Amino acid sequence: MGTPEKISSLQNPRVKRLVQLRDRRTRDESGVFPVEGYREIRRALEKGVPLRELYFAPEWFLGENEPALIAQAGAAGAQLFELTKDAFAKVAYRERPDGLLAVAPQWKRALGELVLPAVPFLLVVEAIEKPGNLGTILRSADAAGCDAVIVCDPVTDIFNPNVVRASTGVLFSVPLVVEVSARVQTWLREKGVRTVATTPAAEKIYSKVDLGGPLAVVMGSEQYGLSDFWLKNADVLARIPMAGQADSLNVAMAAIITLFEAVRQRGG
Amino acid sequence: MGTPEKISSLQNPRVKRLVQLRDRRTRDESGVFPVEGYREIRRALEKGVPLRELYFAPEWFLGENEPALIAQAGAAGAQLFELTKDAFAKVAYRERPDGLLAVAPQWKRALGELVLPAVPFLLVVEAIEKPGNLGTILRSADAAGCDAVIVCDPVTDIFNPNVVRASTGVLFSVPLVVEVSARVQTWLREKGVRTVATTPAAEKIYSKVDLGGPLAVVMGSEQYGLSDFWLKNADVLARIPMAGQADSLNVAMAAIITLFEAVRQRGG
Repeated sequence: MGTPEKISSLQNPRVKRLVQLRDRRTRDESGVFPVEGYREIRRALEKGVPLRELYFAPEWFLGENEPALIAQAGAAGAQLFELTKDAFAKVAYRERPDGLLAVAPQWKRALGELVLPAVPFLLVVEAIEKPGNLGTILRSADAAGCDAVIVCDPVTDIFNPNVVRASTGVLFSVPLVVEVSARVQTWLREKGVRTVATTPAAEKIYSKVDLGGPLAVVMGSEQYGLSDFWLKNADVLARIPMAGQADSLNVAMAAIITLFEAVRQRGG
Repeated sequence: MGTPEKISSLQNPRVKRLVQLRDRRTRDESGVFPVEGYREIRRALEKGVPLRELYFAPEWFLGENEPALIAQAGAAGAQLFELTKDAFAKVAYRERPDGLLAVAPQWKRALGELVLPAVPFLLVVEAIEKPGNLGTILRSADAAGCDAVIVCDPVTDIFNPNVVRASTGVLFSVPLVVEVSARVQTWLREKGVRTVATTPAAEKIYSKVDLGGPLAVVMGSEQYGLSDFWLKNADVLARIPMAGQADSLNVAMAAIITLFEAVRQRGG
């Protein structure tokens, strides 16, 4: 690991490129995405994600462990760049940056690559629109011990900076597959996994449905709920009983309620 | 209801004051708070909150129901002001405003004013720091059918714009009391309400604890968890079993899991 290159110009091409990585098209074309923040970068390193670049600005550091993290990233092959306070403020996505921003390669995992236990516990989410919701859902799936999360027909891309942030880096640890709904349903059926999909229109209450055995919980999108495809093809439809305002539960809240009821039933 | 006053100057004193209402001190001193957004203002009106002022900018409207809402607010006594697009952009708190911003009076409710059913179901939160978490917790309590939410020793004030926003206006419908922990605990004991507090250090699992009967679920702060006071004085301590990363569940997620397990046990 050599001496980090220093960057102070806001016109530096790397600074401009980091700003451009906020756009999905730039991310898609370049095959990389930004990972901002100590916790998120640490989790990426823990999971062996080969960070390409690490940008840091000591004037923004919040703690004392940053140099060790930078050294670890450098030892793992990341190019290091030291930015001035102003230059970092320009590339940071967050309002209160902590002086650390990495660039990581995107990845793609196919359904067939998932290694499932004998009794799988999966979460399937369909057409989630808000990156913050998708990130929160990944956190919930991680806390509930889901074996994988399958994102069907995504509207937001999983490498959106707000997914990384809301997931607190769990994006790097929860096995994640992006696939179209029909293929997912066929694959689940082949694997003998029951699908329980939540919709306010269902008659059965989620906590009275059997959530044991090989299970995939299926959640619809924020605005439209479950698609006709899953309404027709899920093995069981279930609803969460709600008091209060009709829209008090969003998809991330419905997901965590259902997942933890499954954990309870599964004796976890 | 007269013709709305028109405001185009960014230097208009009302425009300046709306910007100042982002600061807690200005809110505290003036005894009012801003309510931004169609859904939030509609809920305030539904609950009979006497809005003092309503600022609107048709160029930002997203739907077709805004004029009816404005007329309703005017009929209920709110002063109306029509702003230019630029003036509204200056007063709006949101990145994508919808052209509606009201000013509402703050209120204060004492424990003794709460009207409780025979078997109360309450949520007590302690020293919550992030307005977004407090707002989400209010939504969860509303969806779970809590009779009231008691906010102990708050760090964020309940009239913060991000509480209003994250609560989607539920702030106006869920009975809410702010009080110090010791008084809350005494009051709950007098009322015969059992307290079940969640902490990762507990031995019992939340779903194996009796959450029926007169119940208050108690949640600690984001950073410090439950205070010693509640650790010592709660009737039962319980934990949520977690797989994955240690910090995957935040306080809002822990609250919704516990509240909906209570709903399940209570047969809701």
